[in-house]
Amino acid sequence: MLGPTRRTACAAASAPAHCRALATEHSPPTRFSSATVFHNEPASPKILSDSVPGPVSRKASQVIGQFQDPRAHVLVADYAKSNGNYLVDVDGNQHLDVFAQIASIAIGYNHPTLIELAKTDEFAIASMNRPALGSFPGADWAETIQKGLLTVAPKGVPHLFTQMDGSGANEGALKAAFMAYRARERKEAGIDDFSAEEASLSSSSFASLTPSSPSQHNNVLTRLSSSTQMASCMNNASPGSPELVAMSFKSGFHGRLFGSLSLTRSKAIHKLDIPAFDWPAVSWPSIKYPLDEYASENAEAEARTIARVEETIVEWAKKGKKVAALIVEPEHGVYLIVDEVQTGVGATGSFWAHEKWQLDHPPDFVTFSKKMQAAGYYHAESTRPSLPYRNYNTWMGSPAIAMQAREIISFIKSHGLVQHTAVIGDELFSHLGALSRRFPGMINNLRGKDHGTFIAWDAESPQARDKFVAAMRHEGVVMGGCGERAIRLRPMLIFGDKQVEVLLEKMESVLKSLEGK
Amino acid sequence: MLGPTRRTACAAASAPAHCRALATEHSPPTRFSSATVFHNEPASPKILSDSVPGPVSRKASQVIGQFQDPRAHVLVADYAKSNGNYLVDVDGNQHLDVFAQIASIAIGYNHPTLIELAKTDEFAIASMNRPALGSFPGADWAETIQKGLLTVAPKGVPHLFTQMDGSGANEGALKAAFMAYRARERKEAGIDDFSAEEASLSSSSFASLTPSSPSQHNNVLTRLSSSTQMASCMNNASPGSPELVAMSFKSGFHGRLFGSLSLTRSKAIHKLDIPAFDWPAVSWPSIKYPLDEYASENAEAEARTIARVEETIVEWAKKGKKVAALIVEPEHGVYLIVDEVQTGVGATGSFWAHEKWQLDHPPDFVTFSKKMQAAGYYHAESTRPSLPYRNYNTWMGSPAIAMQAREIISFIKSHGLVQHTAVIGDELFSHLGALSRRFPGMINNLRGKDHGTFIAWDAESPQARDKFVAAMRHEGVVMGGCGERAIRLRPMLIFGDKQVEVLLEKMESVLKSLEGK
Repeated sequence: MLGPTRRTACAAASAPAHCRALATEHSPPTRFSSATVFHNEPASPKILSDSVPGPVSRKASQVIGQFQDPRAHVLVADYAKSNGNYLVDVDGNQHLDVFAQIASIAIGYNHPTLIELAKTDEFAIASMNRPALGSFPGADWAETIQKGLLTVAPKGVPHLFTQMDGSGANEGALKAAFMAYRARERKEAGIDDFSAEEASLSSSSFASLTPSSPSQHNNVLTRLSSSTQMASCMNNASPGSPELVAMSFKSGFHGRLFGSLSLTRSKAIHKLDIPAFDWPAVSWPSIKYPLDEYASENAEAEARTIARVEETIVEWAKKGKKVAALIVEPEHGVYLIVDEVQTGVGATGSFWAHEKWQLDHPPDFVTFSKKMQAAGYYHAESTRPSLPYRNYNTWMGSPAIAMQAREIISFIKSHGLVQHTAVIGDELFSHLGALSRRFPGMINNLRGKDHGTFIAWDAESPQARDKFVAAMRHEGVVMGGCGERAIRLRPMLIFGDKQVEVLLEKMESVLKSLEGK
Repeated sequence: MLGPTRRTACAAASAPAHCRALATEHSPPTRFSSATVFHNEPASPKILSDSVPGPVSRKASQVIGQFQDPRAHVLVADYAKSNGNYLVDVDGNQHLDVFAQIASIAIGYNHPTLIELAKTDEFAIASMNRPALGSFPGADWAETIQKGLLTVAPKGVPHLFTQMDGSGANEGALKAAFMAYRARERKEAGIDDFSAEEASLSSSSFASLTPSSPSQHNNVLTRLSSSTQMASCMNNASPGSPELVAMSFKSGFHGRLFGSLSLTRSKAIHKLDIPAFDWPAVSWPSIKYPLDEYASENAEAEARTIARVEETIVEWAKKGKKVAALIVEPEHGVYLIVDEVQTGVGATGSFWAHEKWQLDHPPDFVTFSKKMQAAGYYHAESTRPSLPYRNYNTWMGSPAIAMQAREIISFIKSHGLVQHTAVIGDELFSHLGALSRRFPGMINNLRGKDHGTFIAWDAESPQARDKFVAAMRHEGVVMGGCGERAIRLRPMLIFGDKQVEVLLEKMESVLKSLEGK
């Protein structure tokens, strides 16, 4: 089965209920009330200004605009006053936030556990002594990771590479996949890997080497010889910079740097005018909702996509461009990178979304960021590069942020927030289903059943979507658009009964007011 | 004149003394003693273990190795005990640190001003409420930037784009350069830019558009039409993903993600097995030292490089691949990106290294990270992309880290650390010159005159360099290698007389012991 690997994936695949068991491992209570932790959390939204953004937000945005692009501003926030599920803005408006900084807030604004961490010596020291982690890790690095990120390592990928953000995490995993692919090719050809001494030579050392000719490249031994590889990679040329490619799915989003943006196929605005790698993409199956009504059609669509993935791998290999990495089940020795930058850390009702895919083998790389605060990828020891300093950078993540991840994970576990989110998500989904029947045409293709609160639907048109999101903002609910006409819910893991009630009430009111307009 | 744009640049170009004036603007005292701020800073290195790394470091490194690649570890640090210029490790060894986390520490370990910031409410709130800065900036964002990063904006580039690290900063600037280049092409062709509505369409909207044929691309109007651009960029193809290229210099280092790594030409180990863009690179002039002895030869070498840059731009344009960005003075409408990730923030004796280049026009983009803690690029308003969400990502830097930048900048200014570093660097350079004459062959091509403490030299061979660096570590001085046989000094801005004395004493002792071996 194909898994939802797209970071902005408005869709979420279905999963049998027994997979939910994974979420219960550390979760004695099944429901959580944010009021038990956030004593000052508002009970409902409150909009004081005539419009959202209000006049104070608009003025503050103009000030920022003097030095930084303000055109994507939604509002200017007052983070000191924000609490739990509620985002407060500089006009004093209180918004129920079901977008959560594009899925970056895990356990609520100004969570007391995190604020407590912020005031500790360990956090101050970690924040203010920026280490080059790959060369000078701190005494507490191992423990921070062992008590945090390692406790939620997906099955089969117990090793860790840390980065600063989600794009960096995906590109780090992609680099590791390319290196592992080439190492395997060399091994299969019976050729020794290059040595640290060879690889550490600087560009001037290769000046005397004549560039290898195409005919030489046809000889696998020559093509894989160290000197040919070294000299050519310094010129960004094959074989040292190999003709390998990475495959992704159309409509997927994997980041915005040059490698990750080449994988991203969501919208033109992300990609226009930026040079990109000539890499293949395959159409995502057009899934119809509700899933149980369209089971056989959806199965056929998925089968067509799987066939297309296989064909593409073969077609591109014939062009001399082997697919080294892919964001779906492994085929043809292709490494599987699961991008859990947005889907990871509990919102789908399991800690990692791919737990529900029932894979025969674990993925090769699982990337994370956003709710985790820390970013990076999990992998197996077998994909550690042949030499140190190959996948390396000065900072390689941040110890202070790894501490935040540790506390977030710990709170999620001790309060059963993954199971809580699975239960709340089921209820929310069923209520949204009822709403969609009451307002036909306004909530289409509702998706995310059995996927916690990771729920999305389509409006009738892009314009209707924008109108709906704007009207919800005026009611004090911050929501996010996605794709052309979709709306995605990305609430925090502390989103509970009370907030579901508010969200549904506000949605009903807005849908009524927009009905027939 | 060509400027040293390489982040790991072991060389630093010369500059007339009057340029030093730039550094004095905010600097009443010319010399700073770290003892005035760091009351517990060691007076000299102390090595307790039989070897460096000591047994406790080695054991701690093995523990990390169970989940993360440990092969680039130098030692495991005790950051809580580190102070000022001194890095303490888990064996209790005290090292004078002139590498400073690959140039990432600006004003000393556990600087009291920064530890004080760490304990404030503003820092706790900023750290623990991760915003999507481009859409939901906080109430204090403008002030944090106005009191910090904006106060040191290089001349001519008063706008700011923030990112999470140096590679991201360089790629962000590169994306902005490509977008600005294409916008200018469209404008020159009298073609309207695409609209937000067109650009926000998702990939499925372009499915019905047939891919544009090569012959169509020859027609500039067709090539620049919105629909052709949108449809092609979704397939990573020209013209939407343009055939524009970026040029860099051989031996330069600009980062390790897919775009920045394509610019990097330092060592094969950074590049092997990673697919790269087919982009041009030009040899850096082979400068001979001391500069005053080789003035005319060096001028010729620089002239040859400039000619080669021009030829390359013309040659690649003939192939249909226009150079859009370059890391040197602007030519042919090429945007100039100055990579100050390592050179920025004072260590060269001016706040920005390019202040010494005497450019007729300001650079188009100046990137920063490392010592600034915050990362990003400065630019002119004219290179702001045509639409919001084009150069955008979820996090876009960090408010907490921008506060660190604010305090670091403020301390640098109030204590005249740029001028201090200029003065200390001059003294250090002159002492190193004397050492090089006493130990002929062991310190070659000493460079960085009039460039603060941004000083480097070549050992006799890669082996001799490694031996020297290892021997210095056993004496309690952490130094960094660079390139094939170079040693680079990257001390903090609080590096003063006392530390110069210790460094020279230890160097002399090590050079003596290695002499004739």
